[in-house]
Amino acid sequence: MKIGFIGMGIMGKPMAMNLVKAGYDVMVSNRSMEKCEPVVKAGAVSGAYKELAEQCDVIITMLPNSPQVKEVMLGKDGVAAHMKKGATFIDTSSINPVASKEIAEELKKYGIGMLDAPVSGGEPKAVDGTLSFMVGGSQELFDQYKSLLGAMGSSVVRCGEVGAGNTTKLANQIIVACNIQALAEAMTLAQKAGVDPHLVFDAIKGGLAGSTVMNAKAPMMLEGNDKPGFKIDLHIKDLGNALDCAHSVGSPVPMTAAAKEVFEWMHAHDGGQKDHSAIAQYYEYLTGIELGR
Amino acid sequence: MKIGFIGMGIMGKPMAMNLVKAGYDVMVSNRSMEKCEPVVKAGAVSGAYKELAEQCDVIITMLPNSPQVKEVMLGKDGVAAHMKKGATFIDTSSINPVASKEIAEELKKYGIGMLDAPVSGGEPKAVDGTLSFMVGGSQELFDQYKSLLGAMGSSVVRCGEVGAGNTTKLANQIIVACNIQALAEAMTLAQKAGVDPHLVFDAIKGGLAGSTVMNAKAPMMLEGNDKPGFKIDLHIKDLGNALDCAHSVGSPVPMTAAAKEVFEWMHAHDGGQKDHSAIAQYYEYLTGIELGR
Repeated sequence: MKIGFIGMGIMGKPMAMNLVKAGYDVMVSNRSMEKCEPVVKAGAVSGAYKELAEQCDVIITMLPNSPQVKEVMLGKDGVAAHMKKGATFIDTSSINPVASKEIAEELKKYGIGMLDAPVSGGEPKAVDGTLSFMVGGSQELFDQYKSLLGAMGSSVVRCGEVGAGNTTKLANQIIVACNIQALAEAMTLAQKAGVDPHLVFDAIKGGLAGSTVMNAKAPMMLEGNDKPGFKIDLHIKDLGNALDCAHSVGSPVPMTAAAKEVFEWMHAHDGGQKDHSAIAQYYEYLTGIELGR
Repeated sequence: MKIGFIGMGIMGKPMAMNLVKAGYDVMVSNRSMEKCEPVVKAGAVSGAYKELAEQCDVIITMLPNSPQVKEVMLGKDGVAAHMKKGATFIDTSSINPVASKEIAEELKKYGIGMLDAPVSGGEPKAVDGTLSFMVGGSQELFDQYKSLLGAMGSSVVRCGEVGAGNTTKLANQIIVACNIQALAEAMTLAQKAGVDPHLVFDAIKGGLAGSTVMNAKAPMMLEGNDKPGFKIDLHIKDLGNALDCAHSVGSPVPMTAAAKEVFEWMHAHDGGQKDHSAIAQYYEYLTGIELGR
């Protein structure tokens, strides 16, 4: 089985590297080919999109968003048109699940099956091979490629048919965004009302308000540490996909929309490359305080 | 030391009962005196507000909200005017921390010290004596009355000066409300997009989106179980206090405001007595689905 991997960015490069390490026959490609070099040194070969498409049994992509995946796969001289009949497409990008379904429909015409398999965990877990895959697609394809994904991650869960992986990822990103923002809002209110937010954190973390977000992000907010982690610009992309998906399926997302506006403000104020916990800086700016200090 | 306890409601009655059980000399009162009977049978005495004020060294209140506490303590023929100089007032009600500070200022004129000591845990923990107290007031008063509060709760934490207890409680309630609503929003979006929300819950609960709210409330949403728990009407009261406090101190709370609007819709649609996780019914109503079914 020959694997083609398109997208040698922050995530794709270490993921492809882990496939090479696991002994897979890997061919890599990227818009700018020099980004393939480290993986080629590790034992992969590189090639143009068309070569990958013609030679590989599975094509994996890790690209920024829906338009890039559509362009690479279905655009002019796209990958799909050159793939073998019966080959499989696995998209590990985090994109709009509606787009995942549309791509899967198009690929059917070429006799190509698809899994959408976005990840959580970020760069460190991509490097360690401990990503969590949320997978959508047929049970048959999932069973066939579970171990391939397992070479790049420690958790590979099927959530339903094509699109279910990205839908699950959006649900995750909605909850994380709203929870981070509620945390920032509550901590700022406490400090403005004269209470040390460290004591608030200690008092409430063991109760119903407790969360993984609180444990991970409250200390960052209280120290003014905005080193990513997960960047605000990436979270904006995911929240945008959540809104697009919500509008398509007719599900209201008022909290998500409210959260996204504040993330957008951070982007407009040079905060896009900061950790998403830096959303607290919106509240700090408006109240003139520094949280925890 | 004689303890006066005013407010024999769902919370106050079992709290006073636990003081009697712990051997304290307890005198109870309530707007309608017949509610005192169970505690009197257990060994307390009852009396009018004025009698409690004159005879007790500590007055504890557990009342619905800020206006009731102000009326009982500082209204016409209020308790404060009849209390001994050097006596202490402990308010265990969940009220606006700005009101707590105003009451404390007024009580100073009478030589009366104050702790604000709202609780979390609800009726079951009030009965078991395992409430969590979030306390505001001087270190000296806190040290003096920590063991008294300990007879009604398993956790007694000082969060700062007067008002800090209620401020901490508001921070808690903001985070819980927003997190519950984000959960409902995300689960509804997933189901509308064709994904089984049970699988979403399983896939994301171990990651950054995981929380005590998710573990406690997602199963209730997915079963359609809206038995309280913590009632929507009480959460509306707390969110209203959060907004009032936020406006007073100049701290913006856009997420809290957005959440409160949905809680208000639930109240207007006969949902006030349901568990706060029933906020999911707002999303179910708008999308025509039943979550998890």
